[in-house]
Amino acid sequence: MAYELHYWPTIQGRGEFVRLALEAAGAPYVDVARGPEGSGQGVSAMLRCLQDSSVKHPPFAPPFLRDGDVLIGQTSAILQYLGPPLKLVARSEQARLWTQQIQLTIADMVTEAHDTHHPVGTGLYYEDQRPEALRRAREFCNDRMPKYLQWFERIVVRNPGGSRHLVGGKLSYADLSLFQLVEGLRYAFPKAAERALSKAPAVVQLHDRIATLPRVDAYLRSKRRIPFSEQGIFRRYPELDLVDQGLPAPT
Amino acid sequence: MAYELHYWPTIQGRGEFVRLALEAAGAPYVDVARGPEGSGQGVSAMLRCLQDSSVKHPPFAPPFLRDGDVLIGQTSAILQYLGPPLKLVARSEQARLWTQQIQLTIADMVTEAHDTHHPVGTGLYYEDQRPEALRRAREFCNDRMPKYLQWFERIVVRNPGGSRHLVGGKLSYADLSLFQLVEGLRYAFPKAAERALSKAPAVVQLHDRIATLPRVDAYLRSKRRIPFSEQGIFRRYPELDLVDQGLPAPT
Repeated sequence: MAYELHYWPTIQGRGEFVRLALEAAGAPYVDVARGPEGSGQGVSAMLRCLQDSSVKHPPFAPPFLRDGDVLIGQTSAILQYLGPPLKLVARSEQARLWTQQIQLTIADMVTEAHDTHHPVGTGLYYEDQRPEALRRAREFCNDRMPKYLQWFERIVVRNPGGSRHLVGGKLSYADLSLFQLVEGLRYAFPKAAERALSKAPAVVQLHDRIATLPRVDAYLRSKRRIPFSEQGIFRRYPELDLVDQGLPAPT
Repeated sequence: MAYELHYWPTIQGRGEFVRLALEAAGAPYVDVARGPEGSGQGVSAMLRCLQDSSVKHPPFAPPFLRDGDVLIGQTSAILQYLGPPLKLVARSEQARLWTQQIQLTIADMVTEAHDTHHPVGTGLYYEDQRPEALRRAREFCNDRMPKYLQWFERIVVRNPGGSRHLVGGKLSYADLSLFQLVEGLRYAFPKAAERALSKAPAVVQLHDRIATLPRVDAYLRSKRRIPFSEQGIFRRYPELDLVDQGLPAPT
């Protein structure tokens, strides 16, 4: 039976990390909120599921996944669940835990990238928090982004299975999520991302290899891939792409 | 062999979620950075471990845990690892995933509570971001906190194992973390937390029961429990405890 992915239909957002895993594995899935309302899909089906008082394990927010009787929220938990059946995680417990630890660090960075345009209120528009956004984005571009990317670089280079993957010698959901993170950073902060990625060549190479995987490549060219926009987590507001000059190189 | 917990020695912070699990289970552990430098402990031992280039799986930041050869970062991943040996998680895969999903949602709320006093820069002082903090705290106290607590209330009430626990009929690490979350909210936002918790009686009851567990009670009275302060995640800045009047009751 096909997996049911529930997420906002017009943005990549956090749902994209799940979509990429399903697509890279060639797993059958229905992107419920993007389906026709007339067939019991659409946003209203997603909201019905969120508000259903008979659901034992209600998710706090999208994305969430339904697999038969199982309903799971939280992006990192969904990927942990999908890892074994989609063969996107190694078998050993220690490798699984490390993959999840990397995923959680990616999730932290995604939250920080989001907060550059929404530093004081998720319920407010960007236009209502621009001065605050400028301050937050300056720190993100010049300090946090290099620091995170240097950590990813370090763990790719140290991977005993080789620097083609984050964990061992096989593709994992964390590789796919790191690909998406780099895509998002390059879209939202072209100048700051270029500078920070110039110091993280192994991360760039891993990203580039993921992009050429046949299923990923086909997905990225398809209409199923929603374009980046100024509605999602990664938004291109040129005034937030702040590269301070004369800073010491990130270490 | 005793677990080694590595975390900043003067704050509860995210390390406290791990400490509570170890304490509630009566597990032997060394709180490394709080130990004497002369015995190879202290903050410098923690930093050495973070910077050790021979470590295969370096954590991004504290807290992290060492268990023999295993080194794990990310609070939620540490708790997932400790759950089975400390008997702080159920046996079934589905219950384990649900426990982790709850933990990740607690972690999200913890991050939002932190960001009330650091909305634009973790590298800046609170005093340098007070206007931004006031805006962020207003949304947190009046919208986000009630929304999260209503979700916790819902899942406690719906737990098929009874409302004494979050998952099934046994204590889990998520119960302990929810206890700590309520403690932190009450410390940092006494007025806003009182209002939001008045609509979440099952959460309050669960919190109160956790406080009376003999090992938890003994820990809370001991010197091992670091007091809340204006250095940690939960800080009492009275100007940020913002209760808007005349708002509709949270649903």
